[in-house]
Amino acid sequence: MRVLMACLWMSCFAMGAAAQNVPATRATDVVHYQGALDNVKYVFGVAQPVARLRLGNILEANSLDCFGNGIQKPGDTTAMAKGDNPLTGPFFIEGAEPGDTLVVRILDLQVDGKQGVGAFSPGFGAINSTHYTPVLEKEPLGEKIWFYPIDRADNTATFQALDSNYKVKIPMHPFLGCIGVAPANGEARSSIVPAEFGGNMDAPEVSVGNTLYLPVNVSGALFYFGDGHAAMGDGEIAGSAIEVPMRVRLQFDVVKGKRTGWPRFENEKEIMTTGIYRPVDDAVRIAFTELVTWIHADYGLSELDAYELLSKVAKIHLTEMVDPNYVVVASVEKKYLPRK
Amino acid sequence: MRVLMACLWMSCFAMGAAAQNVPATRATDVVHYQGALDNVKYVFGVAQPVARLRLGNILEANSLDCFGNGIQKPGDTTAMAKGDNPLTGPFFIEGAEPGDTLVVRILDLQVDGKQGVGAFSPGFGAINSTHYTPVLEKEPLGEKIWFYPIDRADNTATFQALDSNYKVKIPMHPFLGCIGVAPANGEARSSIVPAEFGGNMDAPEVSVGNTLYLPVNVSGALFYFGDGHAAMGDGEIAGSAIEVPMRVRLQFDVVKGKRTGWPRFENEKEIMTTGIYRPVDDAVRIAFTELVTWIHADYGLSELDAYELLSKVAKIHLTEMVDPNYVVVASVEKKYLPRK
Amino acid sequence: MRVLMACLWMSCFAMGAAAQNVPATRATDVVHYQGALDNVKYVFGVAQPVARLRLGNILEANSLDCFGNGIQKPGDTTAMAKGDNPLTGPFFIEGAEPGDTLVVRILDLQVDGKQGVGAFSPGFGAINSTHYTPVLEKEPLGEKIWFYPIDRADNTATFQALDSNYKVKIPMHPFLGCIGVAPANGEARSSIVPAEFGGNMDAPEVSVGNTLYLPVNVSGALFYFGDGHAAMGDGEIAGSAIEVPMRVRLQFDVVKGKRTGWPRFENEKEIMTTGIYRPVDDAVRIAFTELVTWIHADYGLSELDAYELLSKVAKIHLTEMVDPNYVVVASVEKKYLPRK
Amino acid sequence: MRVLMACLWMSCFAMGAAAQNVPATRATDVVHYQGALDNVKYVFGVAQPVARLRLGNILEANSLDCFGNGIQKPGDTTAMAKGDNPLTGPFFIEGAEPGDTLVVRILDLQVDGKQGVGAFSPGFGAINSTHYTPVLEKEPLGEKIWFYPIDRADNTATFQALDSNYKVKIPMHPFLGCIGVAPANGEARSSIVPAEFGGNMDAPEVSVGNTLYLPVNVSGALFYFGDGHAAMGDGEIAGSAIEVPMRVRLQFDVVKGKRTGWPRFENEKEIMTTGIYRPVDDAVRIAFTELVTWIHADYGLSELDAYELLSKVAKIHLTEMVDPNYVVVASVEKKYLPRK
Repeated sequence: MRVLMACLWMSCFAMGAAAQNVPATRATDVVHYQGALDNVKYVFGVAQPVARLRLGNILEANSLDCFGNGIQKPGDTTAMAKGDNPLTGPFFIEGAEPGDTLVVRILDLQVDGKQGVGAFSPGFGAINSTHYTPVLEKEPLGEKIWFYPIDRADNTATFQALDSNYKVKIPMHPFLGCIGVAPANGEARSSIVPAEFGGNMDAPEVSVGNTLYLPVNVSGALFYFGDGHAAMGDGEIAGSAIEVPMRVRLQFDVVKGKRTGWPRFENEKEIMTTGIYRPVDDAVRIAFTELVTWIHADYGLSELDAYELLSKVAKIHLTEMVDPNYVVVASVEKKYLPRK
Repeated sequence: MRVLMACLWMSCFAMGAAAQNVPATRATDVVHYQGALDNVKYVFGVAQPVARLRLGNILEANSLDCFGNGIQKPGDTTAMAKGDNPLTGPFFIEGAEPGDTLVVRILDLQVDGKQGVGAFSPGFGAINSTHYTPVLEKEPLGEKIWFYPIDRADNTATFQALDSNYKVKIPMHPFLGCIGVAPANGEARSSIVPAEFGGNMDAPEVSVGNTLYLPVNVSGALFYFGDGHAAMGDGEIAGSAIEVPMRVRLQFDVVKGKRTGWPRFENEKEIMTTGIYRPVDDAVRIAFTELVTWIHADYGLSELDAYELLSKVAKIHLTEMVDPNYVVVASVEKKYLPRK
Repeated sequence: MRVLMACLWMSCFAMGAAAQNVPATRATDVVHYQGALDNVKYVFGVAQPVARLRLGNILEANSLDCFGNGIQKPGDTTAMAKGDNPLTGPFFIEGAEPGDTLVVRILDLQVDGKQGVGAFSPGFGAINSTHYTPVLEKEPLGEKIWFYPIDRADNTATFQALDSNYKVKIPMHPFLGCIGVAPANGEARSSIVPAEFGGNMDAPEVSVGNTLYLPVNVSGALFYFGDGHAAMGDGEIAGSAIEVPMRVRLQFDVVKGKRTGWPRFENEKEIMTTGIYRPVDDAVRIAFTELVTWIHADYGLSELDAYELLSKVAKIHLTEMVDPNYVVVASVEKKYLPRK
Repeated sequence: MRVLMACLWMSCFAMGAAAQNVPATRATDVVHYQGALDNVKYVFGVAQPVARLRLGNILEANSLDCFGNGIQKPGDTTAMAKGDNPLTGPFFIEGAEPGDTLVVRILDLQVDGKQGVGAFSPGFGAINSTHYTPVLEKEPLGEKIWFYPIDRADNTATFQALDSNYKVKIPMHPFLGCIGVAPANGEARSSIVPAEFGGNMDAPEVSVGNTLYLPVNVSGALFYFGDGHAAMGDGEIAGSAIEVPMRVRLQFDVVKGKRTGWPRFENEKEIMTTGIYRPVDDAVRIAFTELVTWIHADYGLSELDAYELLSKVAKIHLTEMVDPNYVVVASVEKKYLPRK
């Protein structure tokens, strides 16, 4: 038995090893960078790097919110947004070459402001007429914007209803909606798109303590990030999270000569694969063939034993069902797997 | 703004109230019933009731496993199964009439045996060629069966790999894969199908502490259950859970004159809706229009405020992606909602 | 290489032969039956036969329109419909036993009235909010009904716009939207559902000159028909065709000991398979694995040669994308196939 | 009633008028260009134009086949292909600016060689395990290549089975699989992708006598073409057509100040819209909301009258279900529409 194009999947055993044993000689210098409206990008693609990092370097930088910080107070409209999902970057990672896997450790994420923003925009969302799932309707739903005051002391953002006086506090779980590299095959993709290169995955898994693996498609990988979220529900169903500027602290490494077909995550307790496409059914198929392949390659179970075990203990997380592609994260706790 | 066919959705406020305040005068007699191969059914439909219960009655009964207990030891094959998903029932619930909602409280579930069974059957599964997603292949994957010894003392079932010596314990979370009533419109549906009437939802939410709401389509509702699971991963991706016979303790009530369009769940902390169809995208759309409608009707938020709030705090659970229809449970914690 | 569950597919060579060589001794008696509101059914399932036919018999009968002839003049509403898709039948076909294939030859179809009806019903359609693809909307689209005067002399029905004075004649192509048998596994399905047993396929292929093959699931097959259409666009996108009562002339035969997994069609020039499910993608997959299998089994091409040839000459017809399952007909002209 | 983002759709009435009434003063000079391996491109995006054309100019040029003419004889493999879908272009169309619609008239297409090629590549196809719909399988299907001798005298290409001696002639219908412009939003897309900008639509509608409308996203439009097909079945299900080099004769025009959201086609008899996405369901929804909008805007029927009329007379053509996005063409004959 064999999974389609298994030859493209990396052997993650080696990768994991590399990721955990960064040679002491590698630099851990900190590179600082300030993202701003005059240096952000709106596509994941090949562009002039804004900075270069060596393996082991730590990047301290910031991102604007998904509206380019253009929506600030009641009365503001989405027309005032400075583009969608402005990206900080690209960063050239020295030593990352096509065929390698980029390792990104999420060391710290801090919401960079006093409020978050949520917006319903006609044509975007999981349960309304959209660009890719259009329906005839008598009159379109109108645009709406919500503001979420942030309380750092108790780590919450507050939802305030527009049509009543109801308020409720929501615990913050900061993560980056956008994180990725230049795509393969010479493509350049809008920052609203998630795909094999990462991108707008809107995955809460892009949070402190997790490591992200991305394919390297061009020399230097050309890493971008943005679209900070203070918190988000599964599916991001109305089309936005609690949108915030973010301060980030990330560390980079590379697995040489091993390439991942799709983004993967890992932490002390879990391994996680992604499937990014439409319909959700296909995203699930991608994520699970990936997970079976990973377990088979690195943990030694046969593919059918892995399939069976996952049928008993796997988790599925539908991170968003609103972007041009949908994103599923499949995961399994390492405690259920043989030792590597 | 209005959700499609909102007139069909129940006002769950009234329902919840009824469910929580069963009049003291109602009977809490216990009805005992023994499910066995000679009395099980294989469709959810109209059939002669095996017992009648009054509102408030408790049912103590049992179900065979999804193979009719026909697979017991290494060497046994799925051809030895006594049908798929034999159902215990139907039970006639006195006072349940079309247009009402049946309330089922899951009081207790006990795995009724010393081992569970897992099986991979060609043509069934989330990431292999299937009846409804067929592909050309050189040679089909063959059937495989795994046995899971059960340890009641530590509440685990043990996975034992077929192709290596690996073993690992899996915590048990007993639930019923099948639970439902006679369908609407004179239909009768196979016990492998989930749909508006419940059925083979394979939802771990059918577990102790949760209350299930089902539409009543015929006089007496005609309630069935079966397909006990000791534990299951999200999506039930290889096509089976840890399949076990089960002993159940259930209590019934009715919300008069209110009808739910799709099954719903509730417990002290959460309200949960289901969406049951293909592709998963549509299942998600059903579950969330239901959840928006429920919150609007019973908790007083406007529909767009509810939509926005869910975009920040909702959960999505893909329970299975292998049966003829796929099942999604959307949920929100009550702590995020206004008081009723 | 092997198609999933190929063992279930009939060898259509033998079937075709049988269908073409009805023994001269078989009866060609004509059985007359009058469908009416007091004898129609609303599910495909097991019910008392209204008549029995021997192999070779011809059935001359009629069906009501999909509204039970309940909508007749401007001002009438869909609430006046006598159920959805009333079915004439069931007819017991002597000699048809489970495991056989029922052969239905469409000898004649005549529109049985002076006008046709089209209706848009909220919650039903390909590009509006529906029961299975619901979306939030500000205000639902309202119900609308169009009447189509029928001119037998020039074989047309006339579309008359409701919101302007525009009229245009549409050539008639009479066919039956509903045609099928009792389902397998003890199921009973609503007459709005198409599936393996046929049913509400809304396929213009159910027209004069074509032969339909259906699986036999119960003794006597229990054949039903209804939902006559004077003409219909691909996809039946607004949810209705030009709905008419119909007079039919059908002849029955059986292929013994061969079972088709899904409905198939055949005429002098083409062989046609169906795929009936959601999303359309899966319906296409079903129809084409069927067609590859048929060509391989009866015409002798290898499966990959058949796959390649179809990639150059096959046709796909999406008959409807509005019912609970969607229907695709895949076909190839016999002139492209080896002689049997 | 209103279609989502109707404000983005062009008024095609004006467009059609412009397309049909090219001012006599416009140049009809012929621009010649020779596509070759050293000047083809592999993405639709911004690149240095290879030539500039004025409105009304005719382009006479050629394209390599989808394998870069790299597969020529038995024994050759897909590894010998010079990339996938090499594109001739880009051509800068003077006067085409963002917000306009590019008009491309297909004046002539001639197969440019003596044979065509068909190939089955593992991981690509409608009914096998693929990159975006992967399944576990025991052993993958292997690569296969078919050669199609071309007979210009009788306008046929001959299929020759690999696993038997069977041969059959297929009538040629030459068209371009790839035709499009630089995408919007700074994106660059691989030449295997169809989307809003056109691209790898694999639409037989790109043939002599038809006019194609494309959105202009950058100054000069930057027009590309390639991937000639001598003939193709609906869905291109095994992943290839009869692949050929092509000689083309195209004429360009522009509708100023009107933008089409998706590619459209028109000829004397029909208007045609495209929907390009996954699943097919969404492609159909896009194509039909487009067609309703077009009829409403240019032919004056109300949207619901248009919806109803299409439900009776529309056609759906699934051109391919194998590329990263699927393509549907919805059409209606002009004889069914009011005069403009």
